[in-house]
Amino acid sequence: MTEKISQAVIRRLPKYYKYIIEQEKKGVDKISSSQMSRDMGLNASQIRRDFNYFGGFGQQGYGYSVQKLKSEISKILGLNRTYNVIVIGAGKIGQALIGYENFLNEGFSVVGVFDNSSKVVGNVIEGKKVLAMEEIGKFLKNNTVDIGIICTPKDYAQQTADYLVSHGIKGIWNYAPVDVSVRKGVCVENIHLSESLHVLSYQMSLEE
Amino acid sequence: MTEKISQAVIRRLPKYYKYIIEQEKKGVDKISSSQMSRDMGLNASQIRRDFNYFGGFGQQGYGYSVQKLKSEISKILGLNRTYNVIVIGAGKIGQALIGYENFLNEGFSVVGVFDNSSKVVGNVIEGKKVLAMEEIGKFLKNNTVDIGIICTPKDYAQQTADYLVSHGIKGIWNYAPVDVSVRKGVCVENIHLSESLHVLSYQMSLEE
Repeated sequence: MTEKISQAVIRRLPKYYKYIIEQEKKGVDKISSSQMSRDMGLNASQIRRDFNYFGGFGQQGYGYSVQKLKSEISKILGLNRTYNVIVIGAGKIGQALIGYENFLNEGFSVVGVFDNSSKVVGNVIEGKKVLAMEEIGKFLKNNTVDIGIICTPKDYAQQTADYLVSHGIKGIWNYAPVDVSVRKGVCVENIHLSESLHVLSYQMSLEE
Repeated sequence: MTEKISQAVIRRLPKYYKYIIEQEKKGVDKISSSQMSRDMGLNASQIRRDFNYFGGFGQQGYGYSVQKLKSEISKILGLNRTYNVIVIGAGKIGQALIGYENFLNEGFSVVGVFDNSSKVVGNVIEGKKVLAMEEIGKFLKNNTVDIGIICTPKDYAQQTADYLVSHGIKGIWNYAPVDVSVRKGVCVENIHLSESLHVLSYQMSLEE
């Protein structure tokens, strides 16, 4: 697989994956790019082009096997394994993510929760005991952790990311309302809630 | 302003806006596209092209005025007005959003919170009393509401959207883990947390 695939294609893959999972649940066996196009609001030739980046997934004109698409896209997305996840910051966003029902279905397992407030440390959230921030280092020594979810206030986000990376974490999912940067070889996805809200206000202003 | 501007450009506008706000806070007066390019990791000619869609915002070679960029982009994003927002579903995601500190700074004001659980109705969250779902209709009759944030479980998301739209809501910000669709003239932004997580796992699988 090449790394030269555009961000736009990469960002469509999870959409395809979600769609395929829905089709599987409905008991659909085969799906054509034109059907996907109608259901997903994407151009059929774009779907075929996207799939061709990854080897095509099937013979054109015969439709795609839902099972094959699922297993291939899941492999590309790195979903054919499990990820141990810790949540840093047990505020409301953190708590919401700990209870995020889709996590477990998708192979992401919350193995630790950390906070620096003595009001929160020791509480149990969705069956997980909240540990003090000072315990992260020891925890990471004794447990394999793949991803750290940062749910701290804005001003602590970068230092939390730095700390996690210095302790060997290779993936950061950042919910603090500020982008964090990491060294090469570490992956980060910054969640931008306000950007989505601004796209909404933009669309609404066009309708007026 | 044309509506033919590509989604990719539109999705970059909030990033520019966020960046400009940061520059303003730092006391920066003028900013060049090459500086923006370095700071934001975008191509300078792409930034200039993006700005040209909206009339350019300044004279090339002299840098952009931070104040002008802020006021122009804010206008384009529809942020030169206020939005009254209601939150439907006062679970953890809903609660997190009600307390989302950036809301008020940006002109979005939570004016109502609704839930269908008798355990939650009557509770006060961030100074807002949670009302019963049955009260939405009456509430919308007596109050101007621009945006409904859907934080219901997946299976209630579409019917909630339909209900809000039938009561005149023109914007939906959907946090339920399923896309909702709305009639033409109504705007919707579906938040896809799991898609972002899958992009992260994809990136991580490339690093292995």
